[in-house]
Amino acid sequence: MDIREKKIAILAPVAWRCPPREYGAWETVASNITEGLVARGWKNITLFATRESVTKARLISFVEKGYELDKSQIPLVSTCLHIQKAMEMAGQFDLIHNNFDYQPLTYLRFIKTPMLTTIHGFSDPDILRVYRDHKDSYYVSISDSDRDSELPYLATVYNGIDLSNLTFRENRGDKLVCYGRIHPDKGYHLAIEAAKKSGRELILAGIIQDQDYFDNEVSPHIDAKQIKFIGPVNPLQRDELLGQAYAVLHLNTIPERFGLVMAESNAAGVPVIAMDLGSCREVIADKKTGFLVNSVDDAVEAIDKIPQIDPAACRRHVEKNFTIDIMVSKYEKVYEKIFQLEEQKKQ
Amino acid sequence: MDIREKKIAILAPVAWRCPPREYGAWETVASNITEGLVARGWKNITLFATRESVTKARLISFVEKGYELDKSQIPLVSTCLHIQKAMEMAGQFDLIHNNFDYQPLTYLRFIKTPMLTTIHGFSDPDILRVYRDHKDSYYVSISDSDRDSELPYLATVYNGIDLSNLTFRENRGDKLVCYGRIHPDKGYHLAIEAAKKSGRELILAGIIQDQDYFDNEVSPHIDAKQIKFIGPVNPLQRDELLGQAYAVLHLNTIPERFGLVMAESNAAGVPVIAMDLGSCREVIADKKTGFLVNSVDDAVEAIDKIPQIDPAACRRHVEKNFTIDIMVSKYEKVYEKIFQLEEQKKQ
Repeated sequence: MDIREKKIAILAPVAWRCPPREYGAWETVASNITEGLVARGWKNITLFATRESVTKARLISFVEKGYELDKSQIPLVSTCLHIQKAMEMAGQFDLIHNNFDYQPLTYLRFIKTPMLTTIHGFSDPDILRVYRDHKDSYYVSISDSDRDSELPYLATVYNGIDLSNLTFRENRGDKLVCYGRIHPDKGYHLAIEAAKKSGRELILAGIIQDQDYFDNEVSPHIDAKQIKFIGPVNPLQRDELLGQAYAVLHLNTIPERFGLVMAESNAAGVPVIAMDLGSCREVIADKKTGFLVNSVDDAVEAIDKIPQIDPAACRRHVEKNFTIDIMVSKYEKVYEKIFQLEEQKKQ
Repeated sequence: MDIREKKIAILAPVAWRCPPREYGAWETVASNITEGLVARGWKNITLFATRESVTKARLISFVEKGYELDKSQIPLVSTCLHIQKAMEMAGQFDLIHNNFDYQPLTYLRFIKTPMLTTIHGFSDPDILRVYRDHKDSYYVSISDSDRDSELPYLATVYNGIDLSNLTFRENRGDKLVCYGRIHPDKGYHLAIEAAKKSGRELILAGIIQDQDYFDNEVSPHIDAKQIKFIGPVNPLQRDELLGQAYAVLHLNTIPERFGLVMAESNAAGVPVIAMDLGSCREVIADKKTGFLVNSVDDAVEAIDKIPQIDPAACRRHVEKNFTIDIMVSKYEKVYEKIFQLEEQKKQ
């Protein structure tokens, strides 16, 4: 049997649509995996996601809209129903590819279908209690650095991004850019500090995930001249934003798990100045597609060195490592491995 | 087979210990059901609760401490593991008596053991999405007023309280008392208003569940003279508090689901002035064990009429309706009914 006829369920979160209109990192990746599998000829792909999702696969939905944009929903009610219903249908699939964290694992001993979980990040060390209760399941990490020492991983599969909405531009813009989600982890305050020290204009974009942080650490610096804030950006707006970029600042304060923003920026030919924490050195090629730094002062120095970076090298780096097709071809190998291991179990 | 040899799993929440040291309404009831069944001769009762819980039944725990008092836990991680593990053991029981809301229902189609859910309250209309997905399960309401029209209920079983820590006192005290959890739903602000209008002293007690509410609507009125606040009370402190009470004010702003505070107060011989919303008229016998009111001004009038209430009548009312033994004997009938219905299904 051609492996591409196997029935695969992709379980996405239901915080946002698949693909998200603006923010929604895990939904973006779940969508990219789904569409990538279809594009590579997989015949029986089912996406479990919100009903407003758009996919070329079969869509099954028990939640109408992403709960982040529909405050009438209790998020836990939506996630419980979404996961319960998918698990009740487990018998229809050869493999469940879980992109929705630990809660689906709690059904593992009730279903016979193998489950692969891509761990998109440990939001808190406490969630390891559930993962470690299921060491006999299958896991993929999204970077070598974002791994728990006790879990058995089949592979690291880097996130693949959709290049179609990321226009490569040979000529760089003159703005510093910082986008994603506005949260202390993402170091918007450090980007502001670096911009002020360098004297360059900085455009901030993204959803406000931590309102206190925005109100206290970000908003007071917005002056509509040197420091601008444009709110969340959809893929088209993001492309336009990157077109104005001299460099993207990604001065994360905690270890990055993967860092879609870095790959997207490089794809547009934009160098990234990233804090050397977690996966950043796996995504950015230091001195080739950006600079890894350890402080705001390092970042200010790096800003001056941006002309050394060739935009075409940035794009090539992404094309070689972080496309959807590369990601999906790696997942194909992981799926194949799981099917082999499952066959061995039966013998 | 004697029904009291059936294997029953009581699933408690894990926010607090069973029984709680201070606050924890659902854990209190789950504990009372468990101990009441043991007291009535049930041989095979298992309580799923936090490891620090105290019970004469078999205790099974996957969570060390209540997550409300151990902030290193992510509550959802603890609840997921607690429920998952209990559900994985479902085959060992003849019946699961779920006192932990909707999340256990999401495993119903994976287990063969029948589940009875006591619905301790609908925290939000949205949780009905899960209940209504499981209309073929078994439900008990804790008052006739707290019912969803679409769910099939086997019975209303009023909460039973432990009278051993509630000393009956013939002579009333001179303080107004308001205790439980400090939340707008519980109308502490209305109790303060009524106390001020009546000129009587008011003692407030309870956990602070809504800090903004406490800071803005309660705290500014605390003067250590007319309006005192003593924090959370354990059962012994509660007994002492009720010993000082002239009346308990229970001026809830939303329909009460049951109202343990009202039954406890009456058990101590203390009349209750309660807003006539939800279950209050099922727990309080108007003009016999307290007064049902519709406004703060009504409450102020009722305060003057408290001497008409006989403390002994309050106690008798509880002894006749809200003891653990009465509650458990009603649950025995519900369990019996479920076993009959399950037998019929098999035939």
